[in-house]
Amino acid sequence: MNFDESNDIMNIRLTLQFDGTNYHGWQLQPGRPTIQGMLKDALHKITREDINPTGCGRTDAGVHAYEYTASFRTNASIPIDRIPFALNANLPEDIICTGAAEAPDDFSANSSASGKCYRYTIDNGIFPDVFASRFAWHYKYPLDIESMQAAAEAFVGTHDFIGFASSGFSVKTTVRTIYSIEISKNNNIITIDVAGNGFLYNMVRIITGTLVYAGGGRISPGSIPEIILSRRRENAGITAPAKGLCLRQVFY
Amino acid sequence: MNFDESNDIMNIRLTLQFDGTNYHGWQLQPGRPTIQGMLKDALHKITREDINPTGCGRTDAGVHAYEYTASFRTNASIPIDRIPFALNANLPEDIICTGAAEAPDDFSANSSASGKCYRYTIDNGIFPDVFASRFAWHYKYPLDIESMQAAAEAFVGTHDFIGFASSGFSVKTTVRTIYSIEISKNNNIITIDVAGNGFLYNMVRIITGTLVYAGGGRISPGSIPEIILSRRRENAGITAPAKGLCLRQVFY
Repeated sequence: MNFDESNDIMNIRLTLQFDGTNYHGWQLQPGRPTIQGMLKDALHKITREDINPTGCGRTDAGVHAYEYTASFRTNASIPIDRIPFALNANLPEDIICTGAAEAPDDFSANSSASGKCYRYTIDNGIFPDVFASRFAWHYKYPLDIESMQAAAEAFVGTHDFIGFASSGFSVKTTVRTIYSIEISKNNNIITIDVAGNGFLYNMVRIITGTLVYAGGGRISPGSIPEIILSRRRENAGITAPAKGLCLRQVFY
Repeated sequence: MNFDESNDIMNIRLTLQFDGTNYHGWQLQPGRPTIQGMLKDALHKITREDINPTGCGRTDAGVHAYEYTASFRTNASIPIDRIPFALNANLPEDIICTGAAEAPDDFSANSSASGKCYRYTIDNGIFPDVFASRFAWHYKYPLDIESMQAAAEAFVGTHDFIGFASSGFSVKTTVRTIYSIEISKNNNIITIDVAGNGFLYNMVRIITGTLVYAGGGRISPGSIPEIILSRRRENAGITAPAKGLCLRQVFY
């Protein structure tokens, strides 16, 4: 495509969908395929500019997104409605741009975000479902949904979630607010939808691991408040595998 | 695993689920990965016998199965309920044995079948859904579901479907009976469920291509009877891609 240069800088908001199986997460890493790296390359091809797109957050290696938000500034006068088509022609098949819109000058996909919703998917069949295997954690032992739902309620609200974070992060505060956790089961597929104002490193995956402990009877749902209050990682459940996690939506 | 030899020959019926993306269909081919080849290898590992499993039918390269049926005879006295676990330990991740049962001596996965049900999946969004892309044909142009449903009705019944078969097959008769075609749409995903007593080579994929012509206004639903009666392949629609096709069920 051929876009004219102009002196007007546009701030553009993108929505992306990706199958994270083959990527080392969002963030650019030299020598490794990442979503940000692929987007940067595609943006270079369509604008001829060296753009570092801003993402709504880091996603871990192997994590997917149904609606990831990114933003970038450009001098190229690109017809907004052509951006998704132009990007998709230059992105690999497992990353799709589903929308583009001009954003206010002060919009940032990262700092403007007010919250996010993640979905964790568990395949609870005895044998793994081959059609779900890229996007679900196969966990074959029985899980009691009502126990998981009771445990989930205790996470809702504002808490210090330091016990539900992997080490290797640096944040100002480990207090976060969870708006809701909805758990449902359809045949063998269990989905856990978690919405909150922000999440620590691996937080949704550790909450999932803890809900699985509750569903399997290893801990009682009533013990969640004290596990949270203990602020100790070792009291929570395992970190559920990355491939079951999908960023569903970012709130602005 | 360690199974005792015995003199009793058992006839065993298996159900398999597979993601056909990486396979050249069911049938054994030297030097190419096929479902039958993988199953034969896994059966050899658990029985130490050279078994040629019988399949309910050939599936094309790239076609999937939700419930494929196979059968085989063995001298090994295998505990039936352990067969799926033993096979799954020796099958690749994209082929799963979901069940095993002892079958009557005269049962054959192929010749005992009285019919099959296939599902064809179309992703009708403007941009491909990355989560559906392994199992759906991305077709971005508008499709009118009611026209597709009207066209589908004309296929139901007993007809000579020679115009809906690719060349390269050899069968006694090209007359087949279609029991039903159900078409539904959920967001951008269109599913076409076709049940019948048997299907010619590529028949479901050509019916799908013809329904897409009807949905796109390229042919009228009312013209289907004469297209069938013409018995000419060139009057039907294109052969829809293999990756959208999934064998759902075999009737016995």
